[in-house]
Amino acid sequence: MESFTFHVPTKFVFGRGAEGKAGEEAKALGARRALVHYGSGSCVRSGLLARVEASLRDAGIETVALGGVVPNPRLGLVKEGAALARKERVDLVLAVGGGSVIDSAKGIAAGALDEGEIWDFYERTRVPQKALPVGCVLTIAAAGSESSWASVVTREDGRKRSLHAEAVKPKFALLNPELTFTLPPFQTASGAADMMAHVLERYYSPSAGVDLTDRLCEGILLSILENLPRALKDPADYDARANLMWAGTIAHNNTCGIGRVQDWGSHALEHELSGLYDCAHGAGLAVVFPAWMRYAVEHAGGAARTAQLAVRVFGVDPRAGTESGRALEGIARFKAFLESCGLPTSFKALGAKREDIPRLVDMLEPERRTIGQFLRLDRQTATAVYELCCQD
Amino acid sequence: MESFTFHVPTKFVFGRGAEGKAGEEAKALGARRALVHYGSGSCVRSGLLARVEASLRDAGIETVALGGVVPNPRLGLVKEGAALARKERVDLVLAVGGGSVIDSAKGIAAGALDEGEIWDFYERTRVPQKALPVGCVLTIAAAGSESSWASVVTREDGRKRSLHAEAVKPKFALLNPELTFTLPPFQTASGAADMMAHVLERYYSPSAGVDLTDRLCEGILLSILENLPRALKDPADYDARANLMWAGTIAHNNTCGIGRVQDWGSHALEHELSGLYDCAHGAGLAVVFPAWMRYAVEHAGGAARTAQLAVRVFGVDPRAGTESGRALEGIARFKAFLESCGLPTSFKALGAKREDIPRLVDMLEPERRTIGQFLRLDRQTATAVYELCCQD
Repeated sequence: MESFTFHVPTKFVFGRGAEGKAGEEAKALGARRALVHYGSGSCVRSGLLARVEASLRDAGIETVALGGVVPNPRLGLVKEGAALARKERVDLVLAVGGGSVIDSAKGIAAGALDEGEIWDFYERTRVPQKALPVGCVLTIAAAGSESSWASVVTREDGRKRSLHAEAVKPKFALLNPELTFTLPPFQTASGAADMMAHVLERYYSPSAGVDLTDRLCEGILLSILENLPRALKDPADYDARANLMWAGTIAHNNTCGIGRVQDWGSHALEHELSGLYDCAHGAGLAVVFPAWMRYAVEHAGGAARTAQLAVRVFGVDPRAGTESGRALEGIARFKAFLESCGLPTSFKALGAKREDIPRLVDMLEPERRTIGQFLRLDRQTATAVYELCCQD
Repeated sequence: MESFTFHVPTKFVFGRGAEGKAGEEAKALGARRALVHYGSGSCVRSGLLARVEASLRDAGIETVALGGVVPNPRLGLVKEGAALARKERVDLVLAVGGGSVIDSAKGIAAGALDEGEIWDFYERTRVPQKALPVGCVLTIAAAGSESSWASVVTREDGRKRSLHAEAVKPKFALLNPELTFTLPPFQTASGAADMMAHVLERYYSPSAGVDLTDRLCEGILLSILENLPRALKDPADYDARANLMWAGTIAHNNTCGIGRVQDWGSHALEHELSGLYDCAHGAGLAVVFPAWMRYAVEHAGGAARTAQLAVRVFGVDPRAGTESGRALEGIARFKAFLESCGLPTSFKALGAKREDIPRLVDMLEPERRTIGQFLRLDRQTATAVYELCCQD
């Protein structure tokens, strides 16, 4: 087990009506003026935004609202929000939405206290040392941004990059599973695929041993396998939604990444897909991850890890066939599960094009940065994984 | 899933040499004068105490030392420590030891800022609203006190009670698995039994559903089953010790208790055993828990939970026999595991006496407080569980 520091200072308030605690939690942070950040009008139409703003006002906190975040949130709005936060002298950024809104809010929070170019943080030429406090009311179980240190933003030219900083970790997260009842099935499933990918990026570690961390990863995956079909069958199944929501949170706050080098190559490959095609991040991951796993099994020593996953999570008989055989059977079951939940698992189903592969690899820029720890991605390996995505 | 608030602000620094970060972490809290609290002389003889004090001094922090904590830490020393903390005007209490030392440090931290009777906090007639910050250097993987809100203290008349307060949660915990290499096998195994009990108290929930929380509980238990024998075989197996150490931490900071009512009856039954016989807490739990489970299976609707545990953790065939049969087979395997690790699983093996049962039940005072949520303990049920402890 590698040495690590683990620090999740986020206070989670979970349950029905949790959004009504916004004022109380903001006040506990000493906030007096909050920038309320949101996406499309759905939280306006549902009345959620009004409830959150009322909670803030009841606690004596003034509000400034900024909507318009889109999936794969754009740099332009982050810059606009940072300028607004400075102009309005807010002391809290409260995201009301899913991962895109929270990621955008983190960028705003860091940018508001910085004089320079915000994009530097995403190109990682600078790390923000301070940020306005961030809070969130989560409406989609998926990205885990509600307690992570990451923010992923797309520049208007399609370039998608991520900032990592302790300073942007949310101070509080209000999680009400009922807010996810109205999510369409495809978005529910894409969210779950994103969570599974967050776990798998940590599972594929070159430094894994006989680890508790593996067991936690497997437990989260097993729970998603149990609860996603329940939520798709009955979108208002509170318990299924609650389990998915908490799975999304702990899948990405490093609870299941303790003491290990992690991979994150599949995320990099997917970022180029959603950057180019503007597809749902989770749907892109449903395409990339099984292909990446197959490449890892066949070319990068991934058979043992994948066979363990196949047996412990996908119910493959531990005595059947070879290690590679069990691994490939596990991948087949993973793909079948994703497809049964309505997700694409190929370029074709996603609407991506094989002829774009060279362009995707150009955008990835594997020669400019280190991508992947279990499987190092260079032009050749990245191309090979994208090629596997083209098979049905 | 029940509504919950989850907040673990403790910063964990984990790995070889972690104790050397004491000064840095204390300084980050603004500390200028620390009370360093420890147990017997083992950390003096090993040089650990000197290393920690040097780290503090190097960071410009003065130190006052108070040793003498014993297993089942005593109220008298907590009072002495609180008086010393006031007299010396310390602004941090740093525990160097296992759960007993950390629990004692928490009592001191709360008592130092209180004018009244410290024991009130343990009788729960008052809850401490503030405390000096607590930090810790952990030397035993067991109690999970390094990130819990609990402190268990024994009054000199054998009365053992617990305080629960947000204010005493450690601000930082320095976890170096190497510090546990010298633990004797019995103490290593007792610590693991304590962790398993912390998980099981949460597993036996009257409000459990198809839960992620179950999966996390099972993952921690599986990892202990894997890693305890490795640590007993080779006490200097770093990875085994590291996995046990982290298991102990997350077994008790509520990572595996999310969204559910928990039982805690077995802990109450054990507290009377260690209060009366001064036995190791984990050893007492190894005796009580399997007996409690058997009572729950046979008399309190515990067959379904226990059968699930038996199948998922103890490898019982899910198609074999009846639900009760699988549950009892799981308990038998649990007992066999504990015994194979050198732990007692009966009153006789623990050195407890059947004729003391009425006295233990008197000390438990089930008529004065609510004990147990899955199985409510009254005089009759408590007696019945203690009676089952007398069977081999």
